[in-house]
Amino acid sequence: MTDRPGVLITGVSGRMGRMLTELVIASDDMRLVAALERPGHEWVGQDLGLAMGRGALGITVTDDPLEAFAKAQIVLDFTAPEASVEFARLAAQARAVHVIGTTGFTEEQLAALRPAARHAVIIRAGNMSLGVNLLTVLVRMVAEKLDADYDIEIVEAHHNRKVDAPSGTALMLGEAAAEGRGVKLAEVADRGRDGITGPRERGHIGFSAIRGGDIIGEHQVIFAGQGERLVLGHVASDRALFARGALKAALWGMNRKPGEYDMLDVLGLR
Amino acid sequence: MTDRPGVLITGVSGRMGRMLTELVIASDDMRLVAALERPGHEWVGQDLGLAMGRGALGITVTDDPLEAFAKAQIVLDFTAPEASVEFARLAAQARAVHVIGTTGFTEEQLAALRPAARHAVIIRAGNMSLGVNLLTVLVRMVAEKLDADYDIEIVEAHHNRKVDAPSGTALMLGEAAAEGRGVKLAEVADRGRDGITGPRERGHIGFSAIRGGDIIGEHQVIFAGQGERLVLGHVASDRALFARGALKAALWGMNRKPGEYDMLDVLGLR
Amino acid sequence: MTDRPGVLITGVSGRMGRMLTELVIASDDMRLVAALERPGHEWVGQDLGLAMGRGALGITVTDDPLEAFAKAQIVLDFTAPEASVEFARLAAQARAVHVIGTTGFTEEQLAALRPAARHAVIIRAGNMSLGVNLLTVLVRMVAEKLDADYDIEIVEAHHNRKVDAPSGTALMLGEAAAEGRGVKLAEVADRGRDGITGPRERGHIGFSAIRGGDIIGEHQVIFAGQGERLVLGHVASDRALFARGALKAALWGMNRKPGEYDMLDVLGLR
Amino acid sequence: MTDRPGVLITGVSGRMGRMLTELVIASDDMRLVAALERPGHEWVGQDLGLAMGRGALGITVTDDPLEAFAKAQIVLDFTAPEASVEFARLAAQARAVHVIGTTGFTEEQLAALRPAARHAVIIRAGNMSLGVNLLTVLVRMVAEKLDADYDIEIVEAHHNRKVDAPSGTALMLGEAAAEGRGVKLAEVADRGRDGITGPRERGHIGFSAIRGGDIIGEHQVIFAGQGERLVLGHVASDRALFARGALKAALWGMNRKPGEYDMLDVLGLR
Repeated sequence: MTDRPGVLITGVSGRMGRMLTELVIASDDMRLVAALERPGHEWVGQDLGLAMGRGALGITVTDDPLEAFAKAQIVLDFTAPEASVEFARLAAQARAVHVIGTTGFTEEQLAALRPAARHAVIIRAGNMSLGVNLLTVLVRMVAEKLDADYDIEIVEAHHNRKVDAPSGTALMLGEAAAEGRGVKLAEVADRGRDGITGPRERGHIGFSAIRGGDIIGEHQVIFAGQGERLVLGHVASDRALFARGALKAALWGMNRKPGEYDMLDVLGLR
Repeated sequence: MTDRPGVLITGVSGRMGRMLTELVIASDDMRLVAALERPGHEWVGQDLGLAMGRGALGITVTDDPLEAFAKAQIVLDFTAPEASVEFARLAAQARAVHVIGTTGFTEEQLAALRPAARHAVIIRAGNMSLGVNLLTVLVRMVAEKLDADYDIEIVEAHHNRKVDAPSGTALMLGEAAAEGRGVKLAEVADRGRDGITGPRERGHIGFSAIRGGDIIGEHQVIFAGQGERLVLGHVASDRALFARGALKAALWGMNRKPGEYDMLDVLGLR
Repeated sequence: MTDRPGVLITGVSGRMGRMLTELVIASDDMRLVAALERPGHEWVGQDLGLAMGRGALGITVTDDPLEAFAKAQIVLDFTAPEASVEFARLAAQARAVHVIGTTGFTEEQLAALRPAARHAVIIRAGNMSLGVNLLTVLVRMVAEKLDADYDIEIVEAHHNRKVDAPSGTALMLGEAAAEGRGVKLAEVADRGRDGITGPRERGHIGFSAIRGGDIIGEHQVIFAGQGERLVLGHVASDRALFARGALKAALWGMNRKPGEYDMLDVLGLR
Repeated sequence: MTDRPGVLITGVSGRMGRMLTELVIASDDMRLVAALERPGHEWVGQDLGLAMGRGALGITVTDDPLEAFAKAQIVLDFTAPEASVEFARLAAQARAVHVIGTTGFTEEQLAALRPAARHAVIIRAGNMSLGVNLLTVLVRMVAEKLDADYDIEIVEAHHNRKVDAPSGTALMLGEAAAEGRGVKLAEVADRGRDGITGPRERGHIGFSAIRGGDIIGEHQVIFAGQGERLVLGHVASDRALFARGALKAALWGMNRKPGEYDMLDVLGLR
């Protein structure tokens, strides 16, 4: 039991923080040792379990990063870019595996992560779902194998509160397809098809966005040729999925040599 | 055998004319008695079977409507609006069931069909597929039963040579949904969704158009609510489908009292 | 506010009881007035909210049915057959709308509900989801309209802990299809297709059961003809769905005349 | 034009023979030079085009293999095992690329192909569809990457005249999945799921067979985990697909060094 690596969860009061807490508590492979929130947050100083509205966990939420990082071999971090850059520095000092699910980094912020990666393991991915990451690899591969006789169409469905189309994941899949084809996505993307469009252009990649109800996230990449279609799809049915990916990444990162990794490394697909 | 009604196929050399020919020949319920083409067409005067590149059928393609209509109890007609108006007049004189799959009638041309329908049975539909017609009825009904908590999305897929989006059938399904909701489609249609769209508007009907390969025609109407989705779909896998619908309509029309009918009548769904 | 009907939830500590509690609390159309558990249950005497691990709700869980039913205009009841029979009697005395999601009644138990239905509204359904109930109606209708040239196949998918196949809902859809066809399901059901089966028998209804992951429940009814397929499907993505159906049924039942109803009545589809 | 390799089609009167004929005639990359049928067949001695019920092609169907093989650089062969073994010998003498779509070889017959493969290129595959072959590779890879937390289910749909279940292609996909998992398919296959099955066994591979209408062939391999599903599917919409695969294989085989290859070689996926 005591061999299990200790986990620090940053931004513990957020939706991802709570999900990570539940998963780490239930895990046989790691144990929760620290929970961090920003100074002034109402959870600071309280027992984490009570703050979450469940039984006491014996872990007091802290706003002191030094104290929190000192205990951890693993840091699970879905916060904001500036915070994650600072946490990377602290994780490096502690030689802890730093799993970063934070998105929206600028190029400068990404550069600021690099020194930390010389001393410790950083695993960073915009989408921690194993399935979507694997799908990306498959799409790149198929797009490379099947020539432009196969029309590529990407269809995604999300809930009715989503404000952008196509989804970021759909675009990521489009990038993978374009990469496999050796073209630039921006030059071949057919978005918002409507009206008298003329025949489909060979080599283009089409996008469709379905919006309705509470659909968490579904993606399909269709390769439509003459007489056949290959359809590679992913259905997310639980947001906890992304938290699960983070735990898997963390375990993979233990005893790994320092460096910056992503989910493709975790899956052994690079 | 001699009891089976005699069939005239107009525009017999076209794609639909040939398909209708094959189906009528194979039918136990009717028999082919005449085949019409326009004056000057190379098939006129030839045996229909030989002209089609199969064995002789003993039926000479004619360009004389009077001769052709005199023999028929059923007329299967997928031609052009002007021709179909004239054929309706001739079919009425012959008291033949006139199945019209022709599309693109003007209001005047539709009015010109009416006198004929006082003397004979006319069955007219833009889509002769039983499945699509039935789907239209289901969509109207569901749209009426489920309120705007259920977001309606219509997704269609067609081959890469199709020049317009959404498909006519998708729009027909959208009209059925709007009718069920008691709204005007034009006021609620979300077409070509792309970019920063904002959250989906309640009560809207979304359209997505997938284009690729040689897909004949697939339609889905999604009613997406909280925690559930109802999905009503149709897949066409053979263009002969539309010809089959015409034969079914013709048999239904035998011994029916004069009037203008459509596929909803044939299906008993009106 | 005080006009909103008061709700009693029976078996409040169960999965459905908790879900119903959350939904009723959030509803603008009704208010929670009583919560019942069996004598000896640890929640009895506690504040319902605290027992659930959330904030206090000001409602003490009781084990006294008389006290509970006295306050209610609506009873939401997902318990066990014997309990529901007794609750029906009490609801009738209170003239409360009794929504029964309990399953597994014997014929005798169903008969025992009838006297209560002479004095109050009972709404009972094995599946409270609006979508599935509507699907049942559609399937019966389509099975009636499309003859045996259309092969009916029912495909369902559920999580990997489900112990029976096909699902009860799949069988309910099969019954609807058989009813539409005017046949007995037991005589035409093709279950567990495997090996050298020979060609499919005309008029049969096939079942397939997919089991995997945490799929909540997905059903498809396929009508496969020559050249086309009509596919009517339902996807459940949240178990709260069934609770939502119960609330809708309850509101529908207010001011209705006494009698036994089901979800088809609620949807206006009978 | 004269540079295009000459093609011999064996068993030319069969369904595949006719399809291959149409495709080769339409091809810019090869030209039809010979057509073989068995002695006594009514097409022997006739012009191939006329025998097919289309315009003359200037190629007389022969029953003399020596004459036919002497003209060919490519042999397209979808016949029977004994015939294909003999044709392999003749193709080897002619140094022609021999594409074999024939199925049902015994181990002895397969061994008899080997000597021929020392002198010429043989490309043999039970399913010539590019998409299905590619799908097989993807399935093996995903099964290797995702552990048994992901339940594998294989669902296939075919027309109502198919006599066996699951389809050969479904079993091929199952073998690929089992190989990826490092298990034997026979030990983990769940076929014909029906009744009280108990919870799904971890690591098993389930099969479902849908039968209806004229569905040409659809396959889905589902990897269902907690919170997500990866679904890899293939839809065949035209039987000519398999003929197209054969032509692609033949062109790939030109100037290749002697040996026995399959579609994975053609796709560059081995």
